[in-house]
Amino acid sequence: GAGGIPVPRIFAPYSIYKGKAAVSVNPILPTFTKMDSGHFRVERKGCILLTFWPAVGERKYDWGKKQVNFLFLVIVITVFALSATEGRRHVSDKKFCYSNAGQVRKSLSIKAVPDGTGYFVSLNVVNNLTKITERFVVPVTTAEFIVMKTACSYALPHIMGWHRLTNQQLGDSAKK
Amino acid sequence: GAGGIPVPRIFAPYSIYKGKAAVSVNPILPTFTKMDSGHFRVERKGCILLTFWPAVGERKYDWGKKQVNFLFLVIVITVFALSATEGRRHVSDKKFCYSNAGQVRKSLSIKAVPDGTGYFVSLNVVNNLTKITERFVVPVTTAEFIVMKTACSYALPHIMGWHRLTNQQLGDSAKK
Amino acid sequence: GAGGIPVPRIFAPYSIYKGKAAVSVNPILPTFTKMDSGHFRVERKGCILLTFWPAVGERKYDWGKKQVNFLFLVIVITVFALSATEGRRHVSDKKFCYSNAGQVRKSLSIKAVPDGTGYFVSLNVVNNLTKITERFVVPVTTAEFIVMKTACSYALPHIMGWHRLTNQQLGDSAKK
Amino acid sequence: GAGGIPVPRIFAPYSIYKGKAAVSVNPILPTFTKMDSGHFRVERKGCILLTFWPAVGERKYDWGKKQVNFLFLVIVITVFALSATEGRRHVSDKKFCYSNAGQVRKSLSIKAVPDGTGYFVSLNVVNNLTKITERFVVPVTTAEFIVMKTACSYALPHIMGWHRLTNQQLGDSAKK
Repeated sequence: GAGGIPVPRIFAPYSIYKGKAAVSVNPILPTFTKMDSGHFRVERKGCILLTFWPAVGERKYDWGKKQVNFLFLVIVITVFALSATEGRRHVSDKKFCYSNAGQVRKSLSIKAVPDGTGYFVSLNVVNNLTKITERFVVPVTTAEFIVMKTACSYALPHIMGWHRLTNQQLGDSAKK
Repeated sequence: GAGGIPVPRIFAPYSIYKGKAAVSVNPILPTFTKMDSGHFRVERKGCILLTFWPAVGERKYDWGKKQVNFLFLVIVITVFALSATEGRRHVSDKKFCYSNAGQVRKSLSIKAVPDGTGYFVSLNVVNNLTKITERFVVPVTTAEFIVMKTACSYALPHIMGWHRLTNQQLGDSAKK
Repeated sequence: GAGGIPVPRIFAPYSIYKGKAAVSVNPILPTFTKMDSGHFRVERKGCILLTFWPAVGERKYDWGKKQVNFLFLVIVITVFALSATEGRRHVSDKKFCYSNAGQVRKSLSIKAVPDGTGYFVSLNVVNNLTKITERFVVPVTTAEFIVMKTACSYALPHIMGWHRLTNQQLGDSAKK
Repeated sequence: GAGGIPVPRIFAPYSIYKGKAAVSVNPILPTFTKMDSGHFRVERKGCILLTFWPAVGERKYDWGKKQVNFLFLVIVITVFALSATEGRRHVSDKKFCYSNAGQVRKSLSIKAVPDGTGYFVSLNVVNNLTKITERFVVPVTTAEFIVMKTACSYALPHIMGWHRLTNQQLGDSAKK
């Protein structure tokens, strides 16, 4: 805000680079707003940012052509907890559908690699205005998927804002 | 206390809005009191606050008619850990019974949705004085239930006050 | 140390009160010592403190007759992780045996309640000098046991001193 | 950096001492670098440091002959999550192979003890220049392995740098 000191942000995405595309996972914390009472409430919810971008050569990737998907709380769980445990079934497009003014439609899917060694994580972007369809597919190993899942489980209370609960000072008793 | 500087509180409830009612989950931290020795002990135990309030129209909810239930440590575990793992059996009223001077009786129950897609979380409030009975039922999806459970697991050491253990300074050695 | 400012301690034990005895669980953090290099290393390892004390009447307990057992890292895992998962088998005395100059021998055991509703947590203290044997048995419910287990899992990295890893400041890069 | 104040480091390795060798587990946090924007990004990734050193007598170990192996994120998961759950199968050398200019080749393996009481954690170091091969084998109990695994799971978000997410101040809202 005007006059406010910008708080430095930390960039620590978890990125997986594969043959045709790369994907990175990055948690976005909620923002808080000060109420008249002096207390704080969540203003903008947190989420997990999934960014896909294409390979344009051997170990070369074009960040300029990236496509970003925001996964809110319940979707994070559906993607990383349920899709991995409940029979590795296909996560239908409907659940992850994300539309932008009806013109851009993004869908995310997680499918098991047939030989059981991992998952295909893919994003499909249909732009009805430009008539362009993009598809990013990143095959991740089981270990890479567990890293994504473990990191997202860790991030979950933070994107809910519950980590703030630990910041209160001692002596918050009425009798202090 | 008198002369004390009030510590700002953080409001970050996890809320689920459904057709007939909404429910929110909010952890309440314990308070600490300073002893004559200069050390601190838990004064008032923490808990999880479950708040239910009714819908009064499409996507409109009446916060004024809310009903609050406090879940202490062992109940949190029973609701979120056991009820989800041990055969999704009905959690009997007895366990969650909460009475206020014998006049208001609240009971919480978690029941599996028959098609296996989630749970019914409901609160029953019987007021023997006004002869009014209220019932709030919120159907939650499996993913929403996992969010509630994951968040409560995260909160558990905090409502016990064990997160305070991390606040001690380096050099707490006798030889410093 | 001489001249040092004592750091306030936090007391937040998790206590279970039953008919004949009570038990409390309390994590003890490691202490650190500053090396000549200016860095810190663990000086005294952390542990979990299990304290038992007897009932001397209805809801009255005699803290003066308490018996304390220290559970170090591997024992904590054996008690709370293995004993609950590996067939609820009897944890032999040998494993938890703890002797004090050969005169006082303490043994801890965890046994499943036959009806499957919980565990018997008990401490046996044999004093070869005074020829006195004490035995404390606390029946805990499954939910209470999960609370103990969850809390100890949370405490584990702290009693190892790994929570210190989070205390370093930003700009710990060589290029700052 | 020049003029920078060195940040004190914390040494809290988890060490297991056995008959012929010892092994210690120590997390190394990532370093961050300040960008021109004033924000921070990960500069050097974190990892888990596995150090082996040989016994040279009863309860005497030669730290001077230590051999160090760095386990990056995905390897940590493969070693501690997958090797323990997926049938305790032999983790092939290929996966953990680590070469230094083609002259020193290190391989780590985790094998179940035949009687099911634990694991053999071993490091093989082949130096093609000096023609010396070293082998360290540490038998760890199931409880010790769970401690290693639990500690590494705790460390995982930290070696990714995601624990920094909790360090931002309140009032990071644009409207503050």
